[in-house]
Amino acid sequence: MTLPKIPRIAYGGDYNPEQWDEEVWRQDHAAFELANIDLLTVGAFSWSLTQPAEDRYDFSVLDAVLDLAAEEGRRICLATGTAGVPPWLARKYPDVCRTDFEGRRHVFGQRHNACPSSPNFRRLAVALAGALAERYAEHPAVVAWHIGNEYGGACYCELCAEEFRTWLRARYGTLDELNRAWYATFWSHRFTEWAEIVPPNALSEHWRGPDHTAFQGITVDYLRFNSDNLLRTYREEKDAIRAHSQLPATSNFMGAYKPVDYHRWAPHLDFASWDNYPPDEHSAPRMAFQHALLRGLKDGQPFWLMEQAPSATATRDVNPVKRPGVMRLWSWQAVAHGAEFVGFFQMRRSRGACEKEFGSVLDHAGRTDTRTFREVAALGAEFDAVGNALLGARTPARVALLFDWDSWWARELTDGHSRHLRYLDVALAHHRALWDAGAQVDVVPVTARLEGYDVVVVPTLEMAKGDIAERLEAVARRGGSVVITAMSGRVDEDVLAFRADPPGPFADLAGVRVAETDARFPGELNPVTLAAAGSECATSGEHVFELLEAAGADVVGTYGSDFYAGTPAVTRNHVGEGEVWYIGTALDGAGLDWVHRGVLARHDLLGPYADHPGLEYAVRTVGDRRFEFLLNHSGEAVEVPAASAGTVLVTGDRVEGGQLLQLPPTGVLVLEVERVPGPGPK
Amino acid sequence: MTLPKIPRIAYGGDYNPEQWDEEVWRQDHAAFELANIDLLTVGAFSWSLTQPAEDRYDFSVLDAVLDLAAEEGRRICLATGTAGVPPWLARKYPDVCRTDFEGRRHVFGQRHNACPSSPNFRRLAVALAGALAERYAEHPAVVAWHIGNEYGGACYCELCAEEFRTWLRARYGTLDELNRAWYATFWSHRFTEWAEIVPPNALSEHWRGPDHTAFQGITVDYLRFNSDNLLRTYREEKDAIRAHSQLPATSNFMGAYKPVDYHRWAPHLDFASWDNYPPDEHSAPRMAFQHALLRGLKDGQPFWLMEQAPSATATRDVNPVKRPGVMRLWSWQAVAHGAEFVGFFQMRRSRGACEKEFGSVLDHAGRTDTRTFREVAALGAEFDAVGNALLGARTPARVALLFDWDSWWARELTDGHSRHLRYLDVALAHHRALWDAGAQVDVVPVTARLEGYDVVVVPTLEMAKGDIAERLEAVARRGGSVVITAMSGRVDEDVLAFRADPPGPFADLAGVRVAETDARFPGELNPVTLAAAGSECATSGEHVFELLEAAGADVVGTYGSDFYAGTPAVTRNHVGEGEVWYIGTALDGAGLDWVHRGVLARHDLLGPYADHPGLEYAVRTVGDRRFEFLLNHSGEAVEVPAASAGTVLVTGDRVEGGQLLQLPPTGVLVLEVERVPGPGPK
Amino acid sequence: MTLPKIPRIAYGGDYNPEQWDEEVWRQDHAAFELANIDLLTVGAFSWSLTQPAEDRYDFSVLDAVLDLAAEEGRRICLATGTAGVPPWLARKYPDVCRTDFEGRRHVFGQRHNACPSSPNFRRLAVALAGALAERYAEHPAVVAWHIGNEYGGACYCELCAEEFRTWLRARYGTLDELNRAWYATFWSHRFTEWAEIVPPNALSEHWRGPDHTAFQGITVDYLRFNSDNLLRTYREEKDAIRAHSQLPATSNFMGAYKPVDYHRWAPHLDFASWDNYPPDEHSAPRMAFQHALLRGLKDGQPFWLMEQAPSATATRDVNPVKRPGVMRLWSWQAVAHGAEFVGFFQMRRSRGACEKEFGSVLDHAGRTDTRTFREVAALGAEFDAVGNALLGARTPARVALLFDWDSWWARELTDGHSRHLRYLDVALAHHRALWDAGAQVDVVPVTARLEGYDVVVVPTLEMAKGDIAERLEAVARRGGSVVITAMSGRVDEDVLAFRADPPGPFADLAGVRVAETDARFPGELNPVTLAAAGSECATSGEHVFELLEAAGADVVGTYGSDFYAGTPAVTRNHVGEGEVWYIGTALDGAGLDWVHRGVLARHDLLGPYADHPGLEYAVRTVGDRRFEFLLNHSGEAVEVPAASAGTVLVTGDRVEGGQLLQLPPTGVLVLEVERVPGPGPK
Repeated sequence: MTLPKIPRIAYGGDYNPEQWDEEVWRQDHAAFELANIDLLTVGAFSWSLTQPAEDRYDFSVLDAVLDLAAEEGRRICLATGTAGVPPWLARKYPDVCRTDFEGRRHVFGQRHNACPSSPNFRRLAVALAGALAERYAEHPAVVAWHIGNEYGGACYCELCAEEFRTWLRARYGTLDELNRAWYATFWSHRFTEWAEIVPPNALSEHWRGPDHTAFQGITVDYLRFNSDNLLRTYREEKDAIRAHSQLPATSNFMGAYKPVDYHRWAPHLDFASWDNYPPDEHSAPRMAFQHALLRGLKDGQPFWLMEQAPSATATRDVNPVKRPGVMRLWSWQAVAHGAEFVGFFQMRRSRGACEKEFGSVLDHAGRTDTRTFREVAALGAEFDAVGNALLGARTPARVALLFDWDSWWARELTDGHSRHLRYLDVALAHHRALWDAGAQVDVVPVTARLEGYDVVVVPTLEMAKGDIAERLEAVARRGGSVVITAMSGRVDEDVLAFRADPPGPFADLAGVRVAETDARFPGELNPVTLAAAGSECATSGEHVFELLEAAGADVVGTYGSDFYAGTPAVTRNHVGEGEVWYIGTALDGAGLDWVHRGVLARHDLLGPYADHPGLEYAVRTVGDRRFEFLLNHSGEAVEVPAASAGTVLVTGDRVEGGQLLQLPPTGVLVLEVERVPGPGPK
Repeated sequence: MTLPKIPRIAYGGDYNPEQWDEEVWRQDHAAFELANIDLLTVGAFSWSLTQPAEDRYDFSVLDAVLDLAAEEGRRICLATGTAGVPPWLARKYPDVCRTDFEGRRHVFGQRHNACPSSPNFRRLAVALAGALAERYAEHPAVVAWHIGNEYGGACYCELCAEEFRTWLRARYGTLDELNRAWYATFWSHRFTEWAEIVPPNALSEHWRGPDHTAFQGITVDYLRFNSDNLLRTYREEKDAIRAHSQLPATSNFMGAYKPVDYHRWAPHLDFASWDNYPPDEHSAPRMAFQHALLRGLKDGQPFWLMEQAPSATATRDVNPVKRPGVMRLWSWQAVAHGAEFVGFFQMRRSRGACEKEFGSVLDHAGRTDTRTFREVAALGAEFDAVGNALLGARTPARVALLFDWDSWWARELTDGHSRHLRYLDVALAHHRALWDAGAQVDVVPVTARLEGYDVVVVPTLEMAKGDIAERLEAVARRGGSVVITAMSGRVDEDVLAFRADPPGPFADLAGVRVAETDARFPGELNPVTLAAAGSECATSGEHVFELLEAAGADVVGTYGSDFYAGTPAVTRNHVGEGEVWYIGTALDGAGLDWVHRGVLARHDLLGPYADHPGLEYAVRTVGDRRFEFLLNHSGEAVEVPAASAGTVLVTGDRVEGGQLLQLPPTGVLVLEVERVPGPGPK
Repeated sequence: MTLPKIPRIAYGGDYNPEQWDEEVWRQDHAAFELANIDLLTVGAFSWSLTQPAEDRYDFSVLDAVLDLAAEEGRRICLATGTAGVPPWLARKYPDVCRTDFEGRRHVFGQRHNACPSSPNFRRLAVALAGALAERYAEHPAVVAWHIGNEYGGACYCELCAEEFRTWLRARYGTLDELNRAWYATFWSHRFTEWAEIVPPNALSEHWRGPDHTAFQGITVDYLRFNSDNLLRTYREEKDAIRAHSQLPATSNFMGAYKPVDYHRWAPHLDFASWDNYPPDEHSAPRMAFQHALLRGLKDGQPFWLMEQAPSATATRDVNPVKRPGVMRLWSWQAVAHGAEFVGFFQMRRSRGACEKEFGSVLDHAGRTDTRTFREVAALGAEFDAVGNALLGARTPARVALLFDWDSWWARELTDGHSRHLRYLDVALAHHRALWDAGAQVDVVPVTARLEGYDVVVVPTLEMAKGDIAERLEAVARRGGSVVITAMSGRVDEDVLAFRADPPGPFADLAGVRVAETDARFPGELNPVTLAAAGSECATSGEHVFELLEAAGADVVGTYGSDFYAGTPAVTRNHVGEGEVWYIGTALDGAGLDWVHRGVLARHDLLGPYADHPGLEYAVRTVGDRRFEFLLNHSGEAVEVPAASAGTVLVTGDRVEGGQLLQLPPTGVLVLEVERVPGPGPK
């Protein structure tokens, strides 16, 4: 199974014509025509429309929507529509509704509201998915299946408790093994019957909300179970589709979304897709990180950007419009990292409910003379001009950053040290330094093959699972660089501390022992002086301060204050031909730049525009062709000499090496590079 | 039906002698005598006293209290006492207790604790009101009925759910119509049975509390329903009273209190009354606004100030005492805006429970030599000296400010743009500018007759209902001025966006189109330059920034920064003989001053003391008599030339026009103006 | 009954070997040997281990643990293990689980999770305690019983409601008396059946959490009841132990822990013990206060420090390690205030659950070459060198500070004035001033005998109970000094305001009347000028400002601003031979220093090192021996001339009077003073 078949970068987005009279539909398609929109995702919340009662389907609206799309020459990504249950279902089968973290059974409302253990939900969702697949498998417009929507949240009902027990039996086999893994001698928790086990929530192990649990092991297991339990509902729908259709299926993910372990889901997607709603206007590196994370789900395969806002969102307290050029810039960034579809939420703005002010391609008045529509249409023309050039391309990354949901959960559930050391913050900070330096980076699971990478960055890998230490050692032994950061190697797969000094399984590799772990309040910095090979950097650490004893490693950085002033903060160990860095505190940006640029330089992986802050450099290759993207996020006009000669995509302009390139604010330049023999920029 | 019959400004307040031995009562009346206190509100929480069991009333304490009042020559406003249910009622009929927003059925406690749908509560409350009316209808002390107390809050129980469905059937008739109004195609919400409908709360449509709902339409309807449902309990008690007594009835409101739509209640009150507990010491314009709002409930008729604190309150985290003179100043302000009764909460301080430290006329020791008592007594003497001069007066307002609960709810439930643009803040900001300029302002519902106004201010009227656009146009056509502000005209009565550019029905009137709505974080200002007729003002906007396209209107103000620098922020359209302003952002105070003073000047409505900040100017007229109030809220002594000649109330001093008036801090001066032929100050 | 028999200051702490393989136990004891650790507290959470089912005990692990301890020559404080119920118990008898403040019945999880009213919990906890006592009463290692653990929290279930009613019947006898005490005429609360009474929580009298109640009387009674109800479970277990063993019993308290009134518990402990987890690194005076509070529970008898962290804790958002020397300094501080056991939590760090990063004597790797272990071992050697010198000593305090849970509850439940005037803050502020001045202070209940004290400090005693005013007057009449502060004497034992001006029963004693109580926001200070006997102090007050009228007292301090500028803020009344101070606001530190140093000087109670900030001075006497402790909390090296001649404990060095003593940061010096005839330093 692979990506849907499309002739060029697909363009469009969520389309909910059922919210409007049919007279509007023709206007929609006329507007789509103006904007080169060729792909629509349909039906995400159509259950109450398509199944008005348990014993009755009504496909008339969907038929009309799809037929019109086919007639107009547009493709459809068809949703199963199960992300919001219909009112009759919630009333008829209350077990369909979720019980929340506070232990309260919800009644009908909102969306993403089904208990994944509910047999009634599962039975009827599967039936609906099957019915849709049966009806539309051969429809000429349909190119892909969209199962559910933004899976997430959790349920804590009695059915989930029972499913959790089943999941635990499968994982642990015996209560003795479970008691061992959960450290049940603590606080009188030895379980003597499976039925004694209850979900960890506000009525059992938690206080102060989801991050504070008496038993990290129980809560991490529930997070794993819940992710698997949601995945089961996805898989059941997918199986129902497969009985009728072999078209590729996906579900739209949410980037680095904590409650669901996308790495456990990835094998069950035919292709990855996600919804990009960055928190603010300064999220360029964060988005790049998430694109790389999504790309990493399917081993580097291109993905779909299922949703982004054409302009403002509506879900935040403050929702600015996207400034002129920003939507285009971010859309090209998605393509630069592997997107083959650029989708908007949504095509026409709802008149009612909570998304009625959510930015859209067509506003309430349906105008095509708005700034947003003009920008959408202009970008559509660009994608049309590009044709199929970028389809099937890959990012030639030599740098991997390990990302791990288990470590995320373990880190942020841990009592002790500092709760301000947040997993995603650390991962983003390291990625930002690499991104700024123009490195091509993959974000991959700890189980990923590391053979293809020169540099592997391991931010705060609290949980050391399986053979990861051995595989990192192999990277170093063959000459690679490994960078490990504070609070790594603390616990095993059961969230049990190793009976060894931190960083546990990474201690020999890094050549350090953590003797103590100090913590200070946010803003209480400790100066760190870094020095190596004639280069120095005065930087600082925050939050946690591991007191390191070098056991083989060279000291590269030392703390500047407190009772451990002068002791190691950053070390580098020589392992085989390679180097293993260990960073014992949350270094600030300057420190991370210094470390990572040094590491990248060792492997000749610094990007050609690394000295231009905010000028993103991304590379895609397909067959013999190589495309270099320059994306100006800096907010100012940039002038840089071209690092390569080649041809500008869309315009066809010729660029010579060294020729000054002009990029206005939000400017984008995609250069198809002329390949020359011999080593060139990576 | 009209106001209670009183011979002068009535003076007194809440009196709960049942909390004390009878020996204390005589002391109380002796103190009342010292302070010219002539009216007491009695029995607000007396249910458990007067009805110790379902089958038994005990009126002995009330009899004694009322008889003593009559004997002492004081009037009584008698409460039905149903605002707090007795313990036996909560235990015998658990349906009497409310279910809260979190879905939790409460048990006995606090007050305002009855479910308005509970048949047992309704039956017994009505019986009690009837029994009281029967017993005391002819009592010589009783002059008015006080039904319930500070109606508010909401219930979400199954009885309320059923009543909600009944209310919806009456409103929508069919589920098709309800599905249309609620935009139920969104998120799979098409209802197929009335029974599927549940109240919107934390277990259904809401997250992050009452302001975040998936369906604005559902939540606004529940707010309307809940307000109506509470109103029904008031009406049922009133009907029971009417069977025995024709004395006027009221219930004490809470100013701009969001959960209850007082405009829907107003027809059912004989006269309006309210409790004034401003949030801080700088609330003079806010109190003026609320007085005007209350006055607007009954078409300008005088109202009662049922409660205010003689000194400190006890309900806040910090409760300062009222500084010397402040209680008198604020009391006169109430009279200046239409109060015919000035009441305190309370006459003698409780010894126990949560109001035991609430400021009172008599403290725990019952002393009359306290500062508070002395100030109370001095004011009583002033009111006594005034006699009946101000009874039945009116505020000759030529300016109306529209206030609308539906828009309040819609605005603050909306997802999108900025949640920091709060409805009441905007209304208060505009009112403050008018108040500072000395304009006499009515605060009226959108259904009010506008014929009598020269200026109509329309702050953030998110919901445009009925013929309001046409009636505003009529104001302009006959030469008036209309001021409309950002986020107006967004939705119809069903909280559905108009299929048109904002400001929707006001677009033609204002001569503008809102092309986009930007939002920025609090404190991120955009400079706005206003200029008209040789006057300029450098000001700024905040929160939301509508990108306006003038379609007929003149540009009066432009944004100074961001990508829309130089585009219109404020416009003025010529309509007939009049002018329609449109303000596309939340202008700061200086900007609002500039706009409103310009508008007022056009109609010669600037007050004579507009250049003295903090010196409030209020006018009351009755028959041929005109009273001008000067209230010094500035915190400093003020010296101003008198704008009119006349006689000072209370002292009888003569003032010539132009004579310097001295007002110390907290000073009050009431001038009965000598009427001269020809046009004078408005 | 008295303290456990030990030959020297005992040393050790919580030991949970059941969490580890037996191979580790021998390593543990080898490490204990290195550190002179001789006492282990065992079994605090062993219920699920020792009773795997209702009908079966399994003491095999405890047998082995205790036998090994005996064999290794260590003492055991044996816990009943009932602070965490086993899973089977929660499942079999759901009434065992608590119902929380929100009204939610919990299921199994965490610890301190048993409803104290549950008959099943009580029956089985008592049986377990009895079985343990029967089995181990004569075990050679066991020296004391440890019942439960850190009793706390509250339950609001129906069983507790019924027990509450029973408790109320015993307290009030009749509903009339209860209605009077609860001021039930307020808000329609007259109860007519006992069954109408429900616990005060979020479903009844409370809003905004536990501090906001409609009825202070109901909530204070529930706090009293809950404390008594928990105490009953302790007493039942103790009775079960007594059937088999006469060894002393305790439970570990938590210092100034608000939910449990330790003064009501104290008679039922054989000796007091507590867990010291200060909130930050600057808690030296706070810890001294809590040591004195614990000492005061048993009339000055020594106590045990049951738990402290060897280094970092794990329960906070940020958990710094203890700096070098700090653990030693704080341990000696405990001894200086009366500890005869210094215990750590815990001996070896857990591998799993929420305490796995909690600092411990032995870390996960079990190393003895860590800084923490080295410091622990060094201190053990010191205690070993001291031998039995300090056992049975007393603090010769001439200053008493009254502490009262009822006033704490009443103060922080009160609506009105300022919620920012927190009871414990005030008590700590006064104690800090006394501590800084080197006074020896007892913290005692209001019922304590005051005959032995020269100075009695009464911080914010909101509730004046019994004959406390008379007994304070007696202190003054015989020449003593009494210091009373703002918000004292407001309510009686029923939380009913006195029918008199504040400070109620203290008014005559203090010679003042509080005419009004102003409040301002935190940070809004009012300058206060203090002057007496040629000494002046410019200081300030915060939060509350009582407007005092001197009625016999001298004015010592006056307010500097607001409308009461120049009026009294601090007074001093001459009563008999003594003086009674009244402080009408929350004075800042400088003001409290001025007041308390003046008072202490009058009685010659200033410590000899009072001019060295952060240098704590503590005295212990036993028989003829007198020990003076110097504890350097200042963070800097200190050099002071010795006030007394004597011999340094541990080193045996001789010190002459006036000889310069050198104390490094965290330095400790214990001097056995040479007794000379005649008056010496107190």
